[in-house]
Amino acid sequence: MTPCTQLKDLPAFGELQALALALKSADIEGLFAGAPDRTDTYRADAAGLCLDYSKHLLDDAARAKLVELGEQAQLPQRAHALLSGAEINNTEHRPALHSLLRAASAPGLEDKFAEVVATRGRMRHWAERINRGQQTGFSGQTITDVVNIGIGGSDLGPRLVTEALKPFQGDINCHYVANVDPADLQDTLLDLDPASTLFIVCSKSFRTEETLANSLAAREWMLNAGATEADLDKHFLAITTNLAAAADFGISGDNCLPIWDWVGGRYSVWSAVGLSCAIAVGWDHFEQFLDGAAAMDAHFASAPVDQNLPMLMSLLEIWYCNGFAAGNHVVLPYDQGLAKLPDFLQQLTMESNGKRVSAEGAPLSYDTGPVLWGSAGTMGQHSFHQLLHQGTRLCPVDFILPLTTHTGMTGQHRRLVANCLAQSRALLVGRSLEDARASLLARGLSDAEAAHLAPHLAMPGNRPNSVISFTAVTPHTLGALIALYEHRTFCSGQLWGINPFDQWGVELGKEIGTEILGLMEQASGSPRMDPATDQLISKWRQANAPA
Amino acid sequence: MTPCTQLKDLPAFGELQALALALKSADIEGLFAGAPDRTDTYRADAAGLCLDYSKHLLDDAARAKLVELGEQAQLPQRAHALLSGAEINNTEHRPALHSLLRAASAPGLEDKFAEVVATRGRMRHWAERINRGQQTGFSGQTITDVVNIGIGGSDLGPRLVTEALKPFQGDINCHYVANVDPADLQDTLLDLDPASTLFIVCSKSFRTEETLANSLAAREWMLNAGATEADLDKHFLAITTNLAAAADFGISGDNCLPIWDWVGGRYSVWSAVGLSCAIAVGWDHFEQFLDGAAAMDAHFASAPVDQNLPMLMSLLEIWYCNGFAAGNHVVLPYDQGLAKLPDFLQQLTMESNGKRVSAEGAPLSYDTGPVLWGSAGTMGQHSFHQLLHQGTRLCPVDFILPLTTHTGMTGQHRRLVANCLAQSRALLVGRSLEDARASLLARGLSDAEAAHLAPHLAMPGNRPNSVISFTAVTPHTLGALIALYEHRTFCSGQLWGINPFDQWGVELGKEIGTEILGLMEQASGSPRMDPATDQLISKWRQANAPA
Repeated sequence: MTPCTQLKDLPAFGELQALALALKSADIEGLFAGAPDRTDTYRADAAGLCLDYSKHLLDDAARAKLVELGEQAQLPQRAHALLSGAEINNTEHRPALHSLLRAASAPGLEDKFAEVVATRGRMRHWAERINRGQQTGFSGQTITDVVNIGIGGSDLGPRLVTEALKPFQGDINCHYVANVDPADLQDTLLDLDPASTLFIVCSKSFRTEETLANSLAAREWMLNAGATEADLDKHFLAITTNLAAAADFGISGDNCLPIWDWVGGRYSVWSAVGLSCAIAVGWDHFEQFLDGAAAMDAHFASAPVDQNLPMLMSLLEIWYCNGFAAGNHVVLPYDQGLAKLPDFLQQLTMESNGKRVSAEGAPLSYDTGPVLWGSAGTMGQHSFHQLLHQGTRLCPVDFILPLTTHTGMTGQHRRLVANCLAQSRALLVGRSLEDARASLLARGLSDAEAAHLAPHLAMPGNRPNSVISFTAVTPHTLGALIALYEHRTFCSGQLWGINPFDQWGVELGKEIGTEILGLMEQASGSPRMDPATDQLISKWRQANAPA
Repeated sequence: MTPCTQLKDLPAFGELQALALALKSADIEGLFAGAPDRTDTYRADAAGLCLDYSKHLLDDAARAKLVELGEQAQLPQRAHALLSGAEINNTEHRPALHSLLRAASAPGLEDKFAEVVATRGRMRHWAERINRGQQTGFSGQTITDVVNIGIGGSDLGPRLVTEALKPFQGDINCHYVANVDPADLQDTLLDLDPASTLFIVCSKSFRTEETLANSLAAREWMLNAGATEADLDKHFLAITTNLAAAADFGISGDNCLPIWDWVGGRYSVWSAVGLSCAIAVGWDHFEQFLDGAAAMDAHFASAPVDQNLPMLMSLLEIWYCNGFAAGNHVVLPYDQGLAKLPDFLQQLTMESNGKRVSAEGAPLSYDTGPVLWGSAGTMGQHSFHQLLHQGTRLCPVDFILPLTTHTGMTGQHRRLVANCLAQSRALLVGRSLEDARASLLARGLSDAEAAHLAPHLAMPGNRPNSVISFTAVTPHTLGALIALYEHRTFCSGQLWGINPFDQWGVELGKEIGTEILGLMEQASGSPRMDPATDQLISKWRQANAPA
């Protein structure tokens, strides 16, 4: 792998900053008026998803220059390198082959692919066994509930997919426990019967602090309920590479499914980490989920930059981050089942691209990954949309819009769609002072009152947003949607010149955590960190002192 | 009410910007070294909460100047005006008297307070009636489940409080439905029995689109299950001012509890909007929740600026927003029960202070409210903390830390506390290149490998954060915590010179939504909004066309 060029050294970058400056006060409605085909040319389709990016601070010149930037950064070649297993994660000397997990074939990667296929077979075995009621617990009862214990990538992806595909759910209820706060596990177990509960422990190392603590507590819960150590294999599966630690815990090799170092946690829902999803929705649906992602992979590999959804969305991210100094990006799924999508994307994007040195370790002189946040629409309309419309900060938005509902309640769903389109349009058109005044006069306010209140109703408009629409949330479209954001994240990493597949920045906190835990566990003696930490440890001691 | 002065016109503001510039590359550990009492002087306590703000880019001169800014903005006088019922919401000609809802007495506001007391009595009646099993449904079954239907302020507050106080919960399960997406209601009702379910419809106007649509669907569900229209009063309460609309729906006046125009939605959990919480945790606990907030009100009213928690936290918000150009603020509760706190605070802060004109309607030349986001720790450590530690953006953090657990699992909870302290400290101290290199050599890497990898492990540190600690999440501390952020939000509004109690910016989206819904409901004809909206309506039509 040749190193990426830094963004600032790509020839088009300087020109783009000048173009951004010129477009800062652009009137997007005017851009529509000047180009009757804008809705067609600022649109791209792939794998059942349609990206409408016509409502952006973007004209033809800027768009062409952005595409040029993508070509200068060799995005198509980088995509090829990623998908073909090059050592793209250079700081950890590994490829990043999550795409292999959803592939139908893998020329040149036969060894790894054979492991993937074998693991898919084992996932299918467990999913079908549990769904057919063949898995029984220590007392002979059929397993009815599955609890996934994992955190970060071993939690956010499976949780999102299970929740989003609820309309496809079978008879097994899947639950998710992640936080080391014991309340998380305790609340989840409250309604469950140990005799019919199966745990899936997801931890590559089998050493993740939160996951290990929760798994040990779950094991104790199971043993207290009457299971013997020999029964543990009826109630525990593990997704791990550390077979020895799993065996020590009481989980035999037959109950362990592998994960590989060439799959990052935040890209792992396609692997055995997704087993809880496969159980929830059944194997066939899980395969459709993989197929949807594979369709996006194929598009990503072959579409030219100016038609390539992940590349276009990544170029828009750079455009606003580095051309307009936007510090955040908003994702608003207009679908209650996708309510956890922003949480998932926070990890995907911020853990990948929240970096300050290049892949080669050189300090960067420009901003990288923004804060990603959002919530399900219409919830946010009654919360933070006030700031989106009238705040002082640029917040580019992705609206995610399924056009139909699984509920059968089409009349009410129509309102949901109308609200999504209305928010997208309101951000675009805004409201002039004059229009605000007229609207207030029409409500019966006096001239003086209307003049006084109008500035509060006026909105600048020209706030950029995309709409990603598709017919329905299905396993296929959900797979495509997640893969779309994965590749968008990768492309942005390449444009910024960073490695989006490591996360060295989380190491120090773990080390300090171990030190502090050690200090807290000492019966006495004054702790010796910084004065503020020392004082908080003392406060904790006091609060927990025997009465 | 005299208008607020704009931030830029406060004499201390210019000096603060100069001080901020000088402190941009400050070494916070050095500030500790120079002032052995920093942990005591950069600390303030109120109502059971302790704010540690020693880990900030702040020295004594800057702190004094910030306090001066607060005095110039007359924060103590503004607090008095707020609490005593001045017409502080100037664009809507109303006071903002949420503090009255938790008061024990209210000299000068006797009329309003009498209504509050009467309503508290009615809330208590309903909460006790339902908790004692005296409320029965159409078939004579006891009510076991309560579903709150509301959105925004009628949802986020009650949802947070019920979830946070789960250790205090009685026998009634409370559920929350907000989204107009019919999947939200449908999923919630799946596990419920109409015969034992009671709905609380929260809508000041009884016209909120989402709430009305969900309430009508709930009504239909109830009638389809065998209830008659005459039975509706056994299954529906309303929190509303629109008694006529509630009566049309089938809810009699006896079942309607009032809300007043001097309570904003996002400040309404203390009113009858909080009835679901009072039912969930019982009346006595709800009163303790009110008392906790009242204790914070008393502190806010009387503590000098330099000891006043809401004022100090607000001044820190201004410091980073307008001195360091921070565009966001992070809230990390290290408590699973407080997982929804960031969602609640998003509405509270972003709907209040996401404004671009002054209270008098003049355009502002500086930034106002930032994006607020976050999640429960330790979840975020495996997600977005990478960016907090090594990203290119300044993200000031509030850690929220209860020092004890309700679960009895003190060993596991200790890990949670250790993680919180470790993250706070890691943000502070960072890791030098040299230290990173040494740590890699200690792991057995070669000189060349260590030198190559060290820049990826290095972290700048000096990333500002506060720790708000308290003994335990109780009704009292939760009330104090929410009131703290309410007053912080108010103070920031005053410093920016804006009205934090209106939300005119959400009007346009509603109006356009009605227009678009009308177009969608037309059987045919080409819609006529902007071309992008037109095209999306056509796509929606196509997707929903009969096969």
